[in-house]
Amino acid sequence: MNASAEVICVGSELLLGQITNTNARFLATELARLGVPHYFQTVVGDNETRIHEALSVAAARSGLLLFTGGLGPTADDLTHESLASYFNVPMVEGQGLWEDLQAKFQARGRVATEIQRKQCLLPAGAHVLPNAWGTAVGLLWEARPGLHILTFPGVPGEMTRMWQANAVPYLKALGWGKRVFHSEILRFWGVGEAQLAQKAHHLLQSTNPTVAPYAQGGEVHLRVTAAAPDVETAQTLMAPVIAELKTLGGAYYFGSDETTLPLAVGSLLNHQGQTVAVAESCTGGLVGQLLTAVAGSSRYFRGGIIAYDNQVKIDLLGVDPALLAQEGAVSLAVACQMAEGVRARLGTDWGVSITGIAGPGGASAGKPVGLVCIAVAGKDGTREWEYRFGAQQGRESVRWLSAHAALDGLRHQINKFSQK
Amino acid sequence: MNASAEVICVGSELLLGQITNTNARFLATELARLGVPHYFQTVVGDNETRIHEALSVAAARSGLLLFTGGLGPTADDLTHESLASYFNVPMVEGQGLWEDLQAKFQARGRVATEIQRKQCLLPAGAHVLPNAWGTAVGLLWEARPGLHILTFPGVPGEMTRMWQANAVPYLKALGWGKRVFHSEILRFWGVGEAQLAQKAHHLLQSTNPTVAPYAQGGEVHLRVTAAAPDVETAQTLMAPVIAELKTLGGAYYFGSDETTLPLAVGSLLNHQGQTVAVAESCTGGLVGQLLTAVAGSSRYFRGGIIAYDNQVKIDLLGVDPALLAQEGAVSLAVACQMAEGVRARLGTDWGVSITGIAGPGGASAGKPVGLVCIAVAGKDGTREWEYRFGAQQGRESVRWLSAHAALDGLRHQINKFSQK
Repeated sequence: MNASAEVICVGSELLLGQITNTNARFLATELARLGVPHYFQTVVGDNETRIHEALSVAAARSGLLLFTGGLGPTADDLTHESLASYFNVPMVEGQGLWEDLQAKFQARGRVATEIQRKQCLLPAGAHVLPNAWGTAVGLLWEARPGLHILTFPGVPGEMTRMWQANAVPYLKALGWGKRVFHSEILRFWGVGEAQLAQKAHHLLQSTNPTVAPYAQGGEVHLRVTAAAPDVETAQTLMAPVIAELKTLGGAYYFGSDETTLPLAVGSLLNHQGQTVAVAESCTGGLVGQLLTAVAGSSRYFRGGIIAYDNQVKIDLLGVDPALLAQEGAVSLAVACQMAEGVRARLGTDWGVSITGIAGPGGASAGKPVGLVCIAVAGKDGTREWEYRFGAQQGRESVRWLSAHAALDGLRHQINKFSQK
Repeated sequence: MNASAEVICVGSELLLGQITNTNARFLATELARLGVPHYFQTVVGDNETRIHEALSVAAARSGLLLFTGGLGPTADDLTHESLASYFNVPMVEGQGLWEDLQAKFQARGRVATEIQRKQCLLPAGAHVLPNAWGTAVGLLWEARPGLHILTFPGVPGEMTRMWQANAVPYLKALGWGKRVFHSEILRFWGVGEAQLAQKAHHLLQSTNPTVAPYAQGGEVHLRVTAAAPDVETAQTLMAPVIAELKTLGGAYYFGSDETTLPLAVGSLLNHQGQTVAVAESCTGGLVGQLLTAVAGSSRYFRGGIIAYDNQVKIDLLGVDPALLAQEGAVSLAVACQMAEGVRARLGTDWGVSITGIAGPGGASAGKPVGLVCIAVAGKDGTREWEYRFGAQQGRESVRWLSAHAALDGLRHQINKFSQK
């Protein structure tokens, strides 16, 4: 079969900008993992003529087409109908599908109507790609020799599960997964992309593995990718390059792949058997939310105080009202008292605080939007940092950067004192 | 010119699944706003041959091509080069671009190198699309009669600003924006998509405006779209349909378009001159973070207590240890004490609490993953709700649904008592 895949996402809601295309990203990641080359993605609306057009372009250059969306029961769900008409075959009801669908509705205490029965029709010759998580089944179909078509519903939770359960085994049976493209993403905080790229300049020329830098959400990523017959061989090719990049990145490197800063910090705390509490003003709970997004975070995260109002800083964190009046809520001195206050009140090893001006309002003389004070209190004292993220970033970005800078500050402090 | 636009996003990182394509969504929304028909989006890697291929397909059917990505200084940034070679024109340095670029670097205390000078080259005949927010300029180009090409860097913050500042005026000068597609999205919480679609069945057949239902993140949306010469006429067409849909949706309707539940609740609190505090266990600060994502939330949000650990529930919220032992942390009784505790300690009109099992661990007999207890305390007493979101949702989704269910509970309570 033709050695490359294409993703075709069907849905007018994508073309109207009402949803972000996360399905395309998921499939892209999975194709890379299986070593399936993948050079194009297309988004097309719920329109039979245009689905035919996208299909015609894709089928001429690729041997594996992955469709998402357009499998629902309503009149504008046209993916299967369009495939049938393009390949000139009739739509037929898949054996047992209507009984399955009725049973699914019954399990939810509802009754399937004739409208829903449309979802049981597939192009003649196509096999059912089962969906145990929803009502819309997909298909697996060698529509003509060497052209394999798979369809999935647009609902991400159903699509991803169907992919894992049935699509991956099908593709492996077809012979995919024999040459893998294996990647590791090295993640850095506190260093600029250009600065890191300069340091790693000689490695950016490498061809197998390749090294590609990019910046995202305040982090810098270096993506190391190798092509090899198997993951182990790829990893062997990558190992010396990764080791050198980690050395170049020094303390800025905090983890690889899915290791976010909250995960990296959580793992350090876990390892040290230490606990943390947060005192948040402008981030309003974001640091707590990020830390507790990690399953098992109850081992090291005890809680925190969201001290948005100054009176809460005084009453619940013990910040000195005179200091607040003198230095202002956004000051290093108040940040320190907040971190120390939450550490004392929750009885944790570490206290982390953030107080800043996320904007757009709230600026005053010498205190612009984007000014953020962060402190980390521990048994060996308190360390504080002042950041000026700039007003042009916007509120959401200032809060995001603040929360991550605070987690990074905690990371540095844990590392510093664990090495004593 | 040909009456439709296409978006072409260039970047191997998209095909490797390393980033989500938010640029495509932004441009889709903007094109809809301007009434520019938009039927296809393509993603293609950093490869000249394949960029030519995508260009060839798109140029044959569309009169306006919007490229994002591939404008950086490195060797794999190929968008402008590929355009020049496709249309058989040389690359020439835009007048004054090198001086501008040097000035931008100087402003950051850095020196532009010859590598960066590549970004000053454009296909001969193309005009510069200025970028005041970064180093990569884009272009505006009528590459052949009736075929307009615009390019933007892949960095979302630069792309969106360049779009607003220069691309929109250019498109309006070309005559776009004369027929608008205007949409309003009605947002509902607490009702199923099918249930709402059934109620609104007769309106789903309507053609101008159209009404389309979809579910997203626990909400149900009804998108009402009209085509008209101007926004006012579109709104007039939409008004009776919107009024009827709001009546059908009753108390489930909480707002339109960008009105999230935190915004809807914030606006209610503001209007009533009331304040709120949060007590969060399994959501770890998410409700606070959502409320404070709204600029100006300091008028009604005072703060909260993240009581992840049971001892924090006892010490800082005044939950009765005997009750905790008897009923367990995830119980309606504990939720009520948490809400009442945070309301009393922070001196607010409302206290909102969440305690639940986000999973994957933490389940016990009769208390499965996904069980969440929510309470809202006010001066007229406390109301509590038990939800069973199900273990199959996953941790992130259970937390998201819990936070929104709590905000919705608060919304109902405010509405209930303001109507007295």
